[in-house]
Amino acid sequence: MESNRQWVLASYPNGMPERTNWRLEEGVCPSPLEGEVLARSIYLSVDPYMRGRISPAKNYAAGVAIGECMHGGAVAEVVESKHPGFQPGDIVETINFGWQDFACLKGDGLHKVDPTLGPIHSALGYLGLPGLTAYLALETIGEPKQGETVLISAASGAVGQIAGQIATIRGARAVAVASSQEKLDYCRDLGFADGINYREETDLAAAVRRACPDGVDVFFDNTAGPIHDAVMQNLAPFARIIICGTVSLAGKFDEPDTGLRFMRNILVARARMEGFLFFDHLDKVSAARKQVSDWEKQGLIRHREDVIDGIEHMPEAFLRLLNSENFGKQLVRVRDDPFL
Amino acid sequence: MESNRQWVLASYPNGMPERTNWRLEEGVCPSPLEGEVLARSIYLSVDPYMRGRISPAKNYAAGVAIGECMHGGAVAEVVESKHPGFQPGDIVETINFGWQDFACLKGDGLHKVDPTLGPIHSALGYLGLPGLTAYLALETIGEPKQGETVLISAASGAVGQIAGQIATIRGARAVAVASSQEKLDYCRDLGFADGINYREETDLAAAVRRACPDGVDVFFDNTAGPIHDAVMQNLAPFARIIICGTVSLAGKFDEPDTGLRFMRNILVARARMEGFLFFDHLDKVSAARKQVSDWEKQGLIRHREDVIDGIEHMPEAFLRLLNSENFGKQLVRVRDDPFL
Repeated sequence: MESNRQWVLASYPNGMPERTNWRLEEGVCPSPLEGEVLARSIYLSVDPYMRGRISPAKNYAAGVAIGECMHGGAVAEVVESKHPGFQPGDIVETINFGWQDFACLKGDGLHKVDPTLGPIHSALGYLGLPGLTAYLALETIGEPKQGETVLISAASGAVGQIAGQIATIRGARAVAVASSQEKLDYCRDLGFADGINYREETDLAAAVRRACPDGVDVFFDNTAGPIHDAVMQNLAPFARIIICGTVSLAGKFDEPDTGLRFMRNILVARARMEGFLFFDHLDKVSAARKQVSDWEKQGLIRHREDVIDGIEHMPEAFLRLLNSENFGKQLVRVRDDPFL
Repeated sequence: MESNRQWVLASYPNGMPERTNWRLEEGVCPSPLEGEVLARSIYLSVDPYMRGRISPAKNYAAGVAIGECMHGGAVAEVVESKHPGFQPGDIVETINFGWQDFACLKGDGLHKVDPTLGPIHSALGYLGLPGLTAYLALETIGEPKQGETVLISAASGAVGQIAGQIATIRGARAVAVASSQEKLDYCRDLGFADGINYREETDLAAAVRRACPDGVDVFFDNTAGPIHDAVMQNLAPFARIIICGTVSLAGKFDEPDTGLRFMRNILVARARMEGFLFFDHLDKVSAARKQVSDWEKQGLIRHREDVIDGIEHMPEAFLRLLNSENFGKQLVRVRDDPFL
């Protein structure tokens, strides 16, 4: 049997993670127990939530222990099955794969990827955690209405690009915030009505005001930090603020975040701010996937991936994401995609 | 006809308001137009929201202009009626009276106080804006459930004391935060399960942790500031945070509020924070008043007022409130209550 390469956590980062916080080890390929399948990764996912898993701070899920394989999702191919629902060659997707070649996965509840819905990596993108986060957070918290303004930070990212297109489908005016003109051009091409390059603006609150003259009705916040601050000064009455990610805090994760506070703005606007976590909505995932897939087939949703080849690049891929250097859903391709 | 004493705004406060920000003037008693009544104040209300009306900052309602009569609610007696629904001797309550002896009020939509429901000043207290704010904010945002922990800041105040008792009625565990042991003793007597004297604690977050070992499910935030910060570090999963008041910001109303920020806490807890404003819920006020009145008649809700005599003390009464020196609903009695 082949060996199993895996990235284990070597140390907790002190501020912004560094490549040396992980160590690539080579181990023995595991064997599936009754009810499990052995799967081999094709695509490994890289997502901002992983920053929270390598911090000793309290989080919604247990963190990665030092010496443990780094947590993460994958699209993988079943190579051996001890579960009646799966056979070798099946493509599966799970959040609980880890940064490694092989994993044994419980068959019950395991998501079998339908390759006719789109590229199989889309199960990690617009048909997976980020895309369905965009859909479900807008459906359950944002509720964008015809003519409203929906501002989305990290707008060209895996969540943001889908959120903007869904807002547009709902008849709202999507406004992108991103880190480069190239990314904003892409957002425009997807149908965003306007965009703000936060790296070029000296007065971000004024830039939001210009782009959102009637205020922000829905704020899809993927970053926290200065973009959050600028938007909170431009809330429309009864604004909804989705706290979906805090990637701008990646470099100071274990220290208190201090800065401007917006209690008066929340009160004056009667705004609602709510934390969104995909895992609270697993009962709605199938219907959400069906809807997003339908829109994609109708040409209403497009998507962009940023694929790096080679499991040896996992830490770099993750750091690219934390530094806004990725462009679209960040993936690492571990081996050839059998459907390409 | 008698003269009309009225407090006009002399200047915007610079930080904490001072007595000299208002000026007592004596004017002519106005005459009602067709459809109006002339009413004479018996009780004038003093409420934290008034801080927002004497600031040039953006607010949910227009502010008081320099030279204009200060905004405020009152329970008043009709002395002349040009509206078929009212006659002299009727007791009415309105948010739009002003700090003055006499006001002409539109009869349409004017709330006639039923003296059999309780003391007439209760229309400014537990059966009025603060009490129904407590009820409606808990019903629409807080939704306390059996066994949950509901933490209430400014707990002995006009909103807080009612909120704590309603939380208790709902089967939740109410925890008071107040500025003195005397106030906490009163809250205990009302049925609060525990209390924190924020002026005596050096580590407020630790104090909240001790009083709320399972975390805070509902945070009824009347203050913002350090109490807010302490509670936000102790959120239970799916916590609801009612942003109802920001009285701790009274002294720095027109400068940015800076300090700790809690995006990660909101995300990790999947908390919901929402601004509450009574005036958005006027359609629910009658039913709310009926419910609170029923509870009061059943002995489930008690109330305490802090009454100062004499319209000449309006600014002092308001400053007492901003400095947490009041104990219960702050009122100013302008003339004898005909029902006492």
